[in-house]
Amino acid sequence: QGLSAEEAAQLRAEIAALKAQVSKLESRLDGVEAAAAAPVPAAGVVPGTPAPAQVASAAQPETKIGWKGSPLFSRGDASFKVKGRIQYDAGYVSAPKSVNDRAVGFSNELRRLRLGGEGKLGGGFGYKLETELSDNTVDLVDTYITYEHGKWLVTLGNHNQFQSLDELISDTAGSVMERAAFTDAFGFERRLGLSVQYQNGPILAQGGIFSDSADSLTNASDGPNGGDENNSFGLDGRLVFAPKLGPVQLHLAGSYHWRDFKRLSETPQRYRQRAFLHSINSRFLSTQAISAEGESHYGAEAGAIMGQWHVAGEAHWLRVFRPGLADPTFFGGYAEIGYYITKGDSRPYKAGIMGTADPKNPVSKGGPGAIQVNLRYDYLDMNDTGIIGGKQNAYIAGIIWTPINYLRFNMNYAHIRYDDAAILAGTRADYGVDVMGVRAELDF
Amino acid sequence: QGLSAEEAAQLRAEIAALKAQVSKLESRLDGVEAAAAAPVPAAGVVPGTPAPAQVASAAQPETKIGWKGSPLFSRGDASFKVKGRIQYDAGYVSAPKSVNDRAVGFSNELRRLRLGGEGKLGGGFGYKLETELSDNTVDLVDTYITYEHGKWLVTLGNHNQFQSLDELISDTAGSVMERAAFTDAFGFERRLGLSVQYQNGPILAQGGIFSDSADSLTNASDGPNGGDENNSFGLDGRLVFAPKLGPVQLHLAGSYHWRDFKRLSETPQRYRQRAFLHSINSRFLSTQAISAEGESHYGAEAGAIMGQWHVAGEAHWLRVFRPGLADPTFFGGYAEIGYYITKGDSRPYKAGIMGTADPKNPVSKGGPGAIQVNLRYDYLDMNDTGIIGGKQNAYIAGIIWTPINYLRFNMNYAHIRYDDAAILAGTRADYGVDVMGVRAELDF
Amino acid sequence: QGLSAEEAAQLRAEIAALKAQVSKLESRLDGVEAAAAAPVPAAGVVPGTPAPAQVASAAQPETKIGWKGSPLFSRGDASFKVKGRIQYDAGYVSAPKSVNDRAVGFSNELRRLRLGGEGKLGGGFGYKLETELSDNTVDLVDTYITYEHGKWLVTLGNHNQFQSLDELISDTAGSVMERAAFTDAFGFERRLGLSVQYQNGPILAQGGIFSDSADSLTNASDGPNGGDENNSFGLDGRLVFAPKLGPVQLHLAGSYHWRDFKRLSETPQRYRQRAFLHSINSRFLSTQAISAEGESHYGAEAGAIMGQWHVAGEAHWLRVFRPGLADPTFFGGYAEIGYYITKGDSRPYKAGIMGTADPKNPVSKGGPGAIQVNLRYDYLDMNDTGIIGGKQNAYIAGIIWTPINYLRFNMNYAHIRYDDAAILAGTRADYGVDVMGVRAELDF
Repeated sequence: QGLSAEEAAQLRAEIAALKAQVSKLESRLDGVEAAAAAPVPAAGVVPGTPAPAQVASAAQPETKIGWKGSPLFSRGDASFKVKGRIQYDAGYVSAPKSVNDRAVGFSNELRRLRLGGEGKLGGGFGYKLETELSDNTVDLVDTYITYEHGKWLVTLGNHNQFQSLDELISDTAGSVMERAAFTDAFGFERRLGLSVQYQNGPILAQGGIFSDSADSLTNASDGPNGGDENNSFGLDGRLVFAPKLGPVQLHLAGSYHWRDFKRLSETPQRYRQRAFLHSINSRFLSTQAISAEGESHYGAEAGAIMGQWHVAGEAHWLRVFRPGLADPTFFGGYAEIGYYITKGDSRPYKAGIMGTADPKNPVSKGGPGAIQVNLRYDYLDMNDTGIIGGKQNAYIAGIIWTPINYLRFNMNYAHIRYDDAAILAGTRADYGVDVMGVRAELDF
Repeated sequence: QGLSAEEAAQLRAEIAALKAQVSKLESRLDGVEAAAAAPVPAAGVVPGTPAPAQVASAAQPETKIGWKGSPLFSRGDASFKVKGRIQYDAGYVSAPKSVNDRAVGFSNELRRLRLGGEGKLGGGFGYKLETELSDNTVDLVDTYITYEHGKWLVTLGNHNQFQSLDELISDTAGSVMERAAFTDAFGFERRLGLSVQYQNGPILAQGGIFSDSADSLTNASDGPNGGDENNSFGLDGRLVFAPKLGPVQLHLAGSYHWRDFKRLSETPQRYRQRAFLHSINSRFLSTQAISAEGESHYGAEAGAIMGQWHVAGEAHWLRVFRPGLADPTFFGGYAEIGYYITKGDSRPYKAGIMGTADPKNPVSKGGPGAIQVNLRYDYLDMNDTGIIGGKQNAYIAGIIWTPINYLRFNMNYAHIRYDDAAILAGTRADYGVDVMGVRAELDF
Repeated sequence: QGLSAEEAAQLRAEIAALKAQVSKLESRLDGVEAAAAAPVPAAGVVPGTPAPAQVASAAQPETKIGWKGSPLFSRGDASFKVKGRIQYDAGYVSAPKSVNDRAVGFSNELRRLRLGGEGKLGGGFGYKLETELSDNTVDLVDTYITYEHGKWLVTLGNHNQFQSLDELISDTAGSVMERAAFTDAFGFERRLGLSVQYQNGPILAQGGIFSDSADSLTNASDGPNGGDENNSFGLDGRLVFAPKLGPVQLHLAGSYHWRDFKRLSETPQRYRQRAFLHSINSRFLSTQAISAEGESHYGAEAGAIMGQWHVAGEAHWLRVFRPGLADPTFFGGYAEIGYYITKGDSRPYKAGIMGTADPKNPVSKGGPGAIQVNLRYDYLDMNDTGIIGGKQNAYIAGIIWTPINYLRFNMNYAHIRYDDAAILAGTRADYGVDVMGVRAELDF
């Protein structure tokens, strides 16, 4: 037998109840979908995960919010992120008692303070707009417009001229507090220019034409070094070969740079360098003033990353063109080795430079953060063809603690041996100084 | 016959399964609705589309994210947006060989670099806070608090005094790289003040009382031109009639300005102008130093936009009040015509000024962007009552490519004919210069 | 009888339709849930309301958007907010006719202009990065890294040294336009340093070691007061007891500060103060130049908030260490009473300082905003041991209108009686001035 009358009535009631429930569900779902589709739901970026069709069919593309120290907003192929940086340095310089210079002893400063933004406008166009504000004035750092198309990247504005690995590595990703002595001594800085970059697998080629730094082209700096009086220009190129050999990321590169000082030749050049710490302004090494028409410089770079280890080294030569006199060639270079004692941490490598580890076990998850130990030998020789700029042999040891991504504490010790120093120890120009430095740095 | 026992059992099973499904759906929907209502879903602004009732009943108003080059956040009647601007200029000045000035030849600079924000606090109150950072110092540009009520807008802080159409049009929306010669020559700048604006259909009335530029009222600029020594003030007004006649947007306006230099009269005035390019600082036109107690200036504006075409022209007179001497009156003006060769592109018009086209077919959608061709005649005469400030007749041609909204490339050529120039070509003060200029500009 | 064949067919059809409906509902719900879970829905922060489990189980934590004048983004224990501030001042100083100083009469200025950001990186680490841009230069204000753990807060960077209640209260939350005379006269400013704060119930203990202001440690300020020549340092501590007695929030505190000028002792100190308004730079009170090796200062604070009322008072002594001469001690203090005439408005109290009311009935809801009336007596005596820095007895009345949170209009009148003023009225050093001041201020 089939159904009793009672059973049939019960079935009908159940079906009616189900119908009512489903109808109610449908109208609730209408509401939720409308809410999701219309004012656009999104926030939180999952790369490569497009929103489902029902939602994506909304007229407006949705804004997604990722997080890189601060929120990264994106909408279609446009994006925006506020950028900032704080670096606080303190240090102590110990020198022979006969060195009568204010650099000796304790010093501290806000090393860097940056505020700006970066983003994309869509269609391949993007920008970075960053200002350096730590020195009571506005220094113009990365401030440029980019166009990216496949393997090509065009950059117009104030940016680095692919000078050297150590110069190009971010100051918040370096292995020790300050870059190699030759980078400051040779006057590396960002300049206004137009460059093109091509990347294909392990090959990266970079080249551009540059005028002078945005800072020295302002009205405020008008005069022999600035404004419309400054028509200096230069050409710069760098070639990187960075194959991945099993677990090893290799880095091999060379760069060449040529510059015509043009009207800047009316004021002489000086090549100088501090005693590692930036909070002191005394230059222990310094050439005399050199009348020059231009300069060329060229360097070789090598490095490797394997798991927690990395090594890097550079050699860089600067030649100064003196009219009617022999051209001096100065030389600088360094070699370093670093090791993360925290398991699983490793320097990342991207676009021809090394970065700093995003800790595998940050303190926010109860871990120790990342701890890296680095040793560097840093050499500079600015004695040539009668120019006595001095020499340094520096031995630097550093330990970096990264408790959480975007924050680092850097503690450094350096012993620097000078020959022909610009600051005398009594009557001696050959002596050693010891430097302790600590840095807290945060960027987003 | 009705149902077999087997069929009945099957029906029962189906209904039980449906019940389970519906029950599961209900609890899933509970979750989704809770998520939507409680932490507020939204992001992505659809103007005028309120969120559905289920969602809107949440206690917190939701934050919506629109996009105008960078994200525009809004919540109820409050809003916020980060603002930035990069302008990079390069140019070449060609003059008679007898002109011995460093302006001749190549020059380049970061023309403008801005960072700031704008927003609304609610209740009709809003603000703009923008800094100009391109010159190694902080120049204070639009920095004000506003109150909007119906057709009325009150502005308090550093802002423009409704000087002229060309001055008021954004520097990222102009038809050529630099504004008309009279705008700089007559010293137009933002100043601290209180203004009221009333807009009703085609009528726009603007008026205010102003002191001096925020820059010249700082402690840093204390002295004859700054700080507490500067008590100069002025009154400014502008009236616009801008009817829409069929397809034509008409613009007719007049403005009047009066200023008492007060203590500023202790230092004489100079009225000067560059040779179109800003990257050179040499002023080819310049009056001698003029002892003055104040000044008045007044101008007439006319313009029209019709589809891809626009025309605009202004005439502006500046009178300098000299104690005990005849008051010189200087005159400047321009006339221009522009045409978008890309179909469908047109200059927008809003609040008494013209803008720049948001490309109908941007490169991000595979189009050419917007391309506009402009021609301008720019006249300035600063010779009067014995003052020899010189005259210029400039013919300027420009082409602007806007590949995508918020990004423009501007290429200009100008031939400028000088009479009584401040920079001599040998012994001649009457000669011509040719100027090429390119600008890349991005703002958000 | 059970079911007719017709009825059975109808039931089957209904069940089939329900199945189809439910299946469709399920796939719609799949879409909505995917949209909600994957790119993360959220925006709009509801403190303490975690997202429901279905959503929270997404791999990416969601970004929430709160609003504090501008959006406050948060994601897990990380957060970010852009910060800005505009203060516009205008004032009038009325003095005896025999006072021949440019401070007399009208003056105005952008009092403060700030731009920056603050946020948290997670793991207890946070930061504030703020720049003061109103003076054409970059002044470094709050710029520090923090670490918070339970009741402990560690701060490293440029920050206040817990000098006094009036100095620590935000300049946008004060009862009158400018702080008590002693705070500027005694040179209170933010300095680079490391401090620790401990809060437990009504007890707040703060202490730190500081060098000098970031501004005076820059390369730009290198020389006797800056760069590596400045090795001054000091120790600072403050203890607050702030019990809640029924409806009364009590505040009792004391602070002690000691500083060794070190190399700064090579340039003499001057202790000075304006006539209330900051837009004038003339110092009506000023000591002669004092050769000193260091200083100590200490103060007592008391205050109470009860509903719409508040009272506050401080006494602060500064002792200057003069080698070989008697140490002068200067004294300053104030007492004030304030009352919100708008019902329900009250000064908040948090972390040892008083704030300003978030209006109960803001204009955005049709209310009057918050209106507060304040009276302050402000005393300063810089005459001691032969130093004649002068005395002031100032009577200040102020009214503050807060139409909506983050926006205030402040109108002040002050009568200041001087003894031994640095600016003479003819031959008299004892006279009175009257000061009117208005401020519009906005911060986010």
